Amino acid sequence: MMNPTAAMLVIGDEILSGRTQDTNTHHLAGALTGHGIDLKEVRVVPDDTGAIIAAVQYLSDHYDHVCTSGGIGPTHDDITADAVAAAFGTPIDVRDDARALLMAHYEQAGVEMNEARLRMARIPDGAELIENPISAAPGFTLKNVHVMAGVPMIFQAMVASLLPTLSGGKPLLSRTLRLMQPEGVIAKPLAALAAEFPDLSFGSYPFYSNGTYGTNIVGRGTEASELDAAMARLAALFPMDGT
Amino acid sequence: MMNPTAAMLVIGDEILSGRTQDTNTHHLAGALTGHGIDLKEVRVVPDDTGAIIAAVQYLSDHYDHVCTSGGIGPTHDDITADAVAAAFGTPIDVRDDARALLMAHYEQAGVEMNEARLRMARIPDGAELIENPISAAPGFTLKNVHVMAGVPMIFQAMVASLLPTLSGGKPLLSRTLRLMQPEGVIAKPLAALAAEFPDLSFGSYPFYSNGTYGTNIVGRGTEASELDAAMARLAALFPMDGT
Repeated sequence: MMNPTAAMLVIGDEILSGRTQDTNTHHLAGALTGHGIDLKEVRVVPDDTGAIIAAVQYLSDHYDHVCTSGGIGPTHDDITADAVAAAFGTPIDVRDDARALLMAHYEQAGVEMNEARLRMARIPDGAELIENPISAAPGFTLKNVHVMAGVPMIFQAMVASLLPTLSGGKPLLSRTLRLMQPEGVIAKPLAALAAEFPDLSFGSYPFYSNGTYGTNIVGRGTEASELDAAMARLAALFPMDGT
Repeated sequence: MMNPTAAMLVIGDEILSGRTQDTNTHHLAGALTGHGIDLKEVRVVPDDTGAIIAAVQYLSDHYDHVCTSGGIGPTHDDITADAVAAAFGTPIDVRDDARALLMAHYEQAGVEMNEARLRMARIPDGAELIENPISAAPGFTLKNVHVMAGVPMIFQAMVASLLPTLSGGKPLLSRTLRLMQPEGVIAKPLAALAAEFPDLSFGSYPFYSNGTYGTNIVGRGTEASELDAAMARLAALFPMDGT
């Protein structure tokens, strides 16, 4: 059986302008891989309603899950919740359950609720809330789209809340063999190995260290015994070399 | 006049599996912004010919420039050059100019040319080479698609080779105001300011530091005087606060 598939949609002008390095994709990729869900595509779009709607509709149609990051705060540029609702033609308004979470959090913190903060309680009809243990304002799941915060600490907490609720397949395993050989030497035997193990995938990642070229060969697959056999075969081709 | 637009296409299973944190997008985003080209979309796709072709065709149709990263080395998983050629129906084969660059480099390094390394001289008909001052194997520009290496040091060198050949518009300027106020307090005056300066964009990025919540407000635009006026107006609203 194939693993479920996922796409990531990162929303934010700050990524596209070069101000901010996105790290949420990398975190999500590792978490999904460990859970047996295959991340197949990532898109980054600006804070633009039309761009968000188009990406949500396409990705929701083509993958089992879509995770989004960014644009669910209290300011005017936080348009993700409304855009995701619009993508499915779902009504959205301040919802009592989300408002109650915020009220309890602000009361404890001695902070006033106001109109801007109330925006964070806008949740589409029928969506499930995703818990935010850090700053209370929840994410949500509408159909197969999981809407989460952009601040990395909060995004990671929401991923931790979300993942146990998703059915996973077989975790994708990987093994790395570090060879002090340039890619150009390894390429031919590696291609032969890849042809012999069609259920596995092999990536080749060159590096330069202490004045010499080397290559990390990463094998990936869901069957540990097959993966180990293939990597052992490869290591045997370069006996003096693996470290 | 509008600035030219660009999209980034990152190619590689290693990004989607969570093994590798992509940093090429962040580098390119900063370089394009400084050159007056607006990065409007990013996609990450696996080492899959169909996925690369579909993304190249879409992005090439919708943006002035497409920059790709990854998949142009000597190994079996390096399929970007052939996929980009296929996306435009352009023939591709080992090209004399690219082979000459590789031969000169390998001769100097005392390394043998072989079949795998020769793959890196596969360049589509009519494409312009992009110089690689580090390891010689060139990138190329086919129509409006600029194909570059995935290794960050080489990617950055290729971007430096490429950018001076592209017409830029007005560099997008940004100003940051750091306020020791949570987003929920700033949201309303910020929305009013954004409505008053429709040519500028304003992003709001919360942070948590030394036990208090603060917000970085980033204004962006191409006219320095207008941007400075708007940021001064905002700072005046929080007089005890800007740092």
